[in-house]
Amino acid sequence: MKITVLSGGVGGARFTRGLLSLVGERAEVTVIANTGDDMWLHGVRVCPDLDTLMYTLGGAVHEEQGWGRLDESRRTSDDLAAYGLGWEWFTLGDLDLATHLARTALLRDGLPLSQVTARLAERWAPGVTLLPMTDDEVETHVITADGRDLHFEEWWVRHRAGLPAARFEQTNLATATPAPGVLAAIADADVVVVPPSNPVVSVGTILAIPGVRDALRTTAAPVVGISPVIGGAPVRGMADACLTAIGVETSAVAVARHYGRRPDGVLDAWLVDDRDADAADALRSEGWLAGSANTLMTDVATTARIAADALALVGRLP
Amino acid sequence: MKITVLSGGVGGARFTRGLLSLVGERAEVTVIANTGDDMWLHGVRVCPDLDTLMYTLGGAVHEEQGWGRLDESRRTSDDLAAYGLGWEWFTLGDLDLATHLARTALLRDGLPLSQVTARLAERWAPGVTLLPMTDDEVETHVITADGRDLHFEEWWVRHRAGLPAARFEQTNLATATPAPGVLAAIADADVVVVPPSNPVVSVGTILAIPGVRDALRTTAAPVVGISPVIGGAPVRGMADACLTAIGVETSAVAVARHYGRRPDGVLDAWLVDDRDADAADALRSEGWLAGSANTLMTDVATTARIAADALALVGRLP
Repeated sequence: MKITVLSGGVGGARFTRGLLSLVGERAEVTVIANTGDDMWLHGVRVCPDLDTLMYTLGGAVHEEQGWGRLDESRRTSDDLAAYGLGWEWFTLGDLDLATHLARTALLRDGLPLSQVTARLAERWAPGVTLLPMTDDEVETHVITADGRDLHFEEWWVRHRAGLPAARFEQTNLATATPAPGVLAAIADADVVVVPPSNPVVSVGTILAIPGVRDALRTTAAPVVGISPVIGGAPVRGMADACLTAIGVETSAVAVARHYGRRPDGVLDAWLVDDRDADAADALRSEGWLAGSANTLMTDVATTARIAADALALVGRLP
Repeated sequence: MKITVLSGGVGGARFTRGLLSLVGERAEVTVIANTGDDMWLHGVRVCPDLDTLMYTLGGAVHEEQGWGRLDESRRTSDDLAAYGLGWEWFTLGDLDLATHLARTALLRDGLPLSQVTARLAERWAPGVTLLPMTDDEVETHVITADGRDLHFEEWWVRHRAGLPAARFEQTNLATATPAPGVLAAIADADVVVVPPSNPVVSVGTILAIPGVRDALRTTAAPVVGISPVIGGAPVRGMADACLTAIGVETSAVAVARHYGRRPDGVLDAWLVDDRDADAADALRSEGWLAGSANTLMTDVATTARIAADALALVGRLP
């Protein structure tokens, strides 16, 4: 059985860890990761979502933080700040930095990001095939209400998504193509899962890569999503600020309708939290496959049950 | 009074520190540094001699080691090695790495190395104007007797200069030009000093940049060198392996003759150690200004006296 996941960082990584715990050897899991948050920082290539996936699935993540490595120091980052250069608010942990340096060396050698990612993942054995959404340098920028243009990470990390956003724009989107394996992973899947990642700047960015949305609309596999909104608030992060910017209400039902139901949209089924059981009712009345369950990913076992509920909704429990 | 120094790494940096201690506010010192040892390593630009100068003159050097920063850890470097990539034998200290990242960011922004160097040096206040010999990427390679082509640092650090060298070659030399300020620093100096740096791969590389040798031959300033060979052995490092490769005997007199006396060569005067007083006699009989003194740079005060002896030899003691 083949399962393909479209993932952002922390939420998608934790969901996938639960999914792996559920399916064990009974499924091959491919993760298509958002790379819109990537950036060149101090001359090295930083890929926040790929690294969060790699570390989380490889057992090396800083669990409380959700990203970065266990037992990192800020020595290099602090010393870099002493030069008064660059993004002093963005900490490069000293172990994380080794990943960035390894990646940068391989990219400078001419390898595409997909091959670089495979090479780095060898060390962490994440138990999935980890694919960047594209090998092209697509980066999400935030155009603020007062007209500023910021890299997404600057808006997200430095300003804590506190500057009202007018819209999100991705660089190089017109000429970007899906990374090798991305379209096939969607077309050949037995089920596609959209975890509770940010629907705008994580999953939304993956969907924006030319060809990906069509692949989802046309795959023979069912596509099931888990709501990243519980009781009118994002489970984690500041997804509400992103939803507001694109005119979508922060509610389980509004996010489902934003993704849309196939064939016009990209989903067949939507799992909401028990607190939003009325949203599932509303969606069912519109023809969706919809269900409710406890969807708070408090630990790996709970998350495995959430994955089981999602797969069961489309009849694909392995 | 203007003093210009042509420097490699540790030897030149320690000499210059002594020189500064001697001249204090009475002279403006410009250091033209070898950048032939520079390299792209894991995607970042490493400039060993510039950094050794910056750290030594800025009071941040690891004194026993001679290069790198005080109190560094190998955490990032060890973690990078865990990816099985690149030059695992070349340690990037975590604080040194901050310098490489800052430099790389500025270079990637399009600044030439000379401007980058000035920007980084602001933090360390080295008390000199620090110039790279060139803004071009000139890198020294070693062609070994058995035909291998290694970056100089690989031959020097990994193989400890133990692979017999057939010759040294610099990349991009034909099209390289001196960095802004280099030729003027030689032309406008009141005295030019060649410290006890490696005459082949440090000073020799600076001299190989088109225009530098002619500038030394034609400057109105006297040019004085201090022998890096004492009693038939290099004071530090493995300069004998470099001299042997180019067919020069490892002796104080042979190195002087290799540099040559102006106007055909680049020196007017040569200071040797007291143990090589006979070399000074021999050179004087050939028309050189030559002297002997204790030239072992055991501490800053001793090194200041060596600098005084060198300047006195050409009548330029400030």
